[in-house]
Amino acid sequence: MDRRFFIYRKVLTYLCHLMQQPALYTVLSPKLLSLYPVKDAVVVIIDVFRATSTIATALYNGAHKIYPVDSVEQCKALGSQLNAITAGERDGKVIEGLQYGNSPAEYPRTFIEGKTMVLTTTNGTKLLHMALREGASEVITGSFPNLQAVCDFLVAQNKPVILGCSAWKDRFNLEDTLFAGAVIDAIGQHFTIHCDSSLMAVEMYRQHQNDMYQFIRKTTHWHRLANYGLEKDLEYCVTPNVANTLCIYRDNALVAQ
Amino acid sequence: MDRRFFIYRKVLTYLCHLMQQPALYTVLSPKLLSLYPVKDAVVVIIDVFRATSTIATALYNGAHKIYPVDSVEQCKALGSQLNAITAGERDGKVIEGLQYGNSPAEYPRTFIEGKTMVLTTTNGTKLLHMALREGASEVITGSFPNLQAVCDFLVAQNKPVILGCSAWKDRFNLEDTLFAGAVIDAIGQHFTIHCDSSLMAVEMYRQHQNDMYQFIRKTTHWHRLANYGLEKDLEYCVTPNVANTLCIYRDNALVAQ
Repeated sequence: MDRRFFIYRKVLTYLCHLMQQPALYTVLSPKLLSLYPVKDAVVVIIDVFRATSTIATALYNGAHKIYPVDSVEQCKALGSQLNAITAGERDGKVIEGLQYGNSPAEYPRTFIEGKTMVLTTTNGTKLLHMALREGASEVITGSFPNLQAVCDFLVAQNKPVILGCSAWKDRFNLEDTLFAGAVIDAIGQHFTIHCDSSLMAVEMYRQHQNDMYQFIRKTTHWHRLANYGLEKDLEYCVTPNVANTLCIYRDNALVAQ
Repeated sequence: MDRRFFIYRKVLTYLCHLMQQPALYTVLSPKLLSLYPVKDAVVVIIDVFRATSTIATALYNGAHKIYPVDSVEQCKALGSQLNAITAGERDGKVIEGLQYGNSPAEYPRTFIEGKTMVLTTTNGTKLLHMALREGASEVITGSFPNLQAVCDFLVAQNKPVILGCSAWKDRFNLEDTLFAGAVIDAIGQHFTIHCDSSLMAVEMYRQHQNDMYQFIRKTTHWHRLANYGLEKDLEYCVTPNVANTLCIYRDNALVAQ
């Protein structure tokens, strides 16, 4: 009788624990964001090639603040207003009128420390602003270079999570999905996950975590960017924890925390 | 010199062959359809649990025509006008006012042969009408029960292909993706594929083709439908080639070809 009592209690405690775990969803494209419960969730903006990898690297290397903006015009205007450096790329080249590109290699500590930066990107910034409009409680950016920092923050927050893939012009992409899978692989057990995107993402990650450099060469985005001679950049962007800083959105800018 | 000439010619022939292959894309949700080149493509509507599995089964078993409609009202009106049987389910039960459900098991030859059916479904019908509006050259339905018929048709057509997953309320689902992967696994070599969704779908299929009955139990849709006691139905829906008929859209109805 005593033994059964303890077993029941253990099972009940476990079930209560499971029921209290916050939900986690993976959103595969900005176009799908509105289908998921964003309000009051922590949203992780994922743009592996290369915006969020560059953001992590620049903040890790001591950048003061990074303002993500939608358009080149905004980038120039805000850059001039804040006396900040301006950055953005199209087709693998620095955009005319801006100063720097979207490569993490451009932002070593010797250059970026203490500087403020205004960055325009195509996919990630749009998703970030959508998440804010939908009432996210926190917005952070995620990439392989700051994987561990993202995971630690999400577990500590103990709130619902949306892993938001920036995709490419709204089309599903693999590199963002693999990062979502890496997060779920690491901390999925802390969340309630009823979400096929998450199930797929973690399977794809587990399948390819040990041949990432090879597998990533098959993706459409790799082909697009490798044409511009960016292979080294892209390999860096799928390397975990080389710029392990939490990048959080505060007062219109991303800052290290 | 002669030998080099033959090698060059072989490589050139191969490249020309590759360049002539039509494109194939996998679309993971109706919300993403407009991002892909649907015009003049053959669109495969995939709604594995269970609309397109039921359509394949009913047509394989001799149904005369199946009219897919968006709403219960349309279903009743058209059913009455054509003196056809009406079918549709919500939450695992026949919809009030309709006669039959959305289970392939309800449509054996002894019952359905020669009959016309009006079917209302949530996800698949919407995608089918979207594909027609976007100018698809042909619309067919695909499911594991008619996998081979779908593959044979796509290869014979030699046109661009869109594998359209109906998803669940626009959210990504695994069962439709696995079917897209099965098609790509079988006939991908006949198409030019620069599409991360297709790459992911075929990887997921290859990973799970031999444990499909187990893996499918992990999906959200399985959990939703298994609650209604539909396990046998769902296992049937991931069984290849048990109702191997091509289901093609002609004059507002799906017919066998």
